[in-house]
Amino acid sequence: MNPPPSSVSPARSRERRQRVQAAETGVAVLKALGSLGGRASLTLIAAHVDESPAKVHRYLVSLMEGGLVAQDNATQQYFLSLESLLLGLAAMRQADPIRMAEASLIRMREELEITCFVAVMGNMGPTIVRFEEPGLPVTVNVRVGSVLSMLWSATGRVLLATLDEGRVRALAQAELDDATPEQRAQLDPDDPIGVLQQSVRDAGCAVVRDTNLRGISAISAPLYNYTGRPCAVLTALGATGGFDASPHGAVGQAIRREAQAISRLLGNVSGEARVPA
Amino acid sequence: MNPPPSSVSPARSRERRQRVQAAETGVAVLKALGSLGGRASLTLIAAHVDESPAKVHRYLVSLMEGGLVAQDNATQQYFLSLESLLLGLAAMRQADPIRMAEASLIRMREELEITCFVAVMGNMGPTIVRFEEPGLPVTVNVRVGSVLSMLWSATGRVLLATLDEGRVRALAQAELDDATPEQRAQLDPDDPIGVLQQSVRDAGCAVVRDTNLRGISAISAPLYNYTGRPCAVLTALGATGGFDASPHGAVGQAIRREAQAISRLLGNVSGEARVPA
Repeated sequence: MNPPPSSVSPARSRERRQRVQAAETGVAVLKALGSLGGRASLTLIAAHVDESPAKVHRYLVSLMEGGLVAQDNATQQYFLSLESLLLGLAAMRQADPIRMAEASLIRMREELEITCFVAVMGNMGPTIVRFEEPGLPVTVNVRVGSVLSMLWSATGRVLLATLDEGRVRALAQAELDDATPEQRAQLDPDDPIGVLQQSVRDAGCAVVRDTNLRGISAISAPLYNYTGRPCAVLTALGATGGFDASPHGAVGQAIRREAQAISRLLGNVSGEARVPA
Repeated sequence: MNPPPSSVSPARSRERRQRVQAAETGVAVLKALGSLGGRASLTLIAAHVDESPAKVHRYLVSLMEGGLVAQDNATQQYFLSLESLLLGLAAMRQADPIRMAEASLIRMREELEITCFVAVMGNMGPTIVRFEEPGLPVTVNVRVGSVLSMLWSATGRVLLATLDEGRVRALAQAELDDATPEQRAQLDPDDPIGVLQQSVRDAGCAVVRDTNLRGISAISAPLYNYTGRPCAVLTALGATGGFDASPHGAVGQAIRREAQAISRLLGNVSGEARVPA
């Protein structure tokens, strides 16, 4: 008396597929509203997801019941409301540069066999917070927790060029005041910090050869978050000579590409940076 | 040969219900992840929505395909990812205090028959941006676009007490320097601005009687956004005498209740305010 198995299974799996499909349609409607700037008419949303207005309306009702979407009484437009905003706030708390850089660090270590790290601006200066090295590492005396030079490290130079903060400039000025004539000769005689900042901004990365650690070259690029603010720096380093320390070499390209990919994960989708004036 | 209508309709309507139900379950799973801080294990999410882990997993797969959720390889935890962050940014652009105050203004106008408005800190000072008045309005010489006093209007006093900005203090100080002895006598002799700020913070609203407009009393309360920053002020005003200008009277209670409701719509769910030190 039971129905044959052949008639149960397809029905079950169809139901299962449908349920998932419905959730995916709901997600598509929600994302369409986001893509349309957060507020749009039913007609526009339906056109965006290529479904009938009647069908899209049912999904909007579900999204409204969940508080993700609301309808404007005056214009009849739908807009992303409180629960969408709260989801975004929770997502922002998860958009941590250290976590988001994880996959890039491993990719660079494995594909390019280089030492690479993520640094942030700590209260003492640029500070390494995540460090990856290949099986045959280059010997360097920096590790997680190390505070780097503001003016002589590639990491510090990226922060100097992208963060418009008084303490960053003050740290760089203090290091400039303490510079040896040899160090000073590497910088512009008239505007040592200004010219350095501009060259980093123009190249989208900073390169140093032997200025911070003897025999070591490094390339750094900034990580930007969803506000366009630089929130961390991605750096690769290697022995000078065995490491192509030019912005357009293999490592330079990889650093800039990975920094852009991480910035995207942090919500910087347009690639917009808030460059200090 | 067609199936009888009675067998088609329930099936159709069941399918329709299911589709909506599936979208709602997807929304519930997404919101659960948000409530759990933006990152959680499958077990925890399933417990939170009171569904089986197997079922919740299918919804998470749909959410992952839409880019709203991602899975951490190291911990197997799910977390809100880029598309959730972008939805939140679009929702924040919609969380406009003027728009969100609309319903409150109409409710206060209709239920309390009072004149009420929303003001923001403009470049010249506190500026009215939305104005509602009842059928029998009290005659006042302020309207949309009017710039109010920083020190002598209830609106200005709320901004002075909640916004920690140099130009706000400078405007208040300039008005204090220009005050008549009569005006000056209304404030604390030793710390006129500091005592005023503290009294507004303690009451959660500012009250003035005849200090800004002769014969007019007003009560104002701050609107906070999702960062805890005061982004606008909600004010009710009326003829002194015909208007209960006390923080705990009917209008005072309504203003504070409506200000909290608007702040909630702006993402200030915890009621947290960033009070200046």
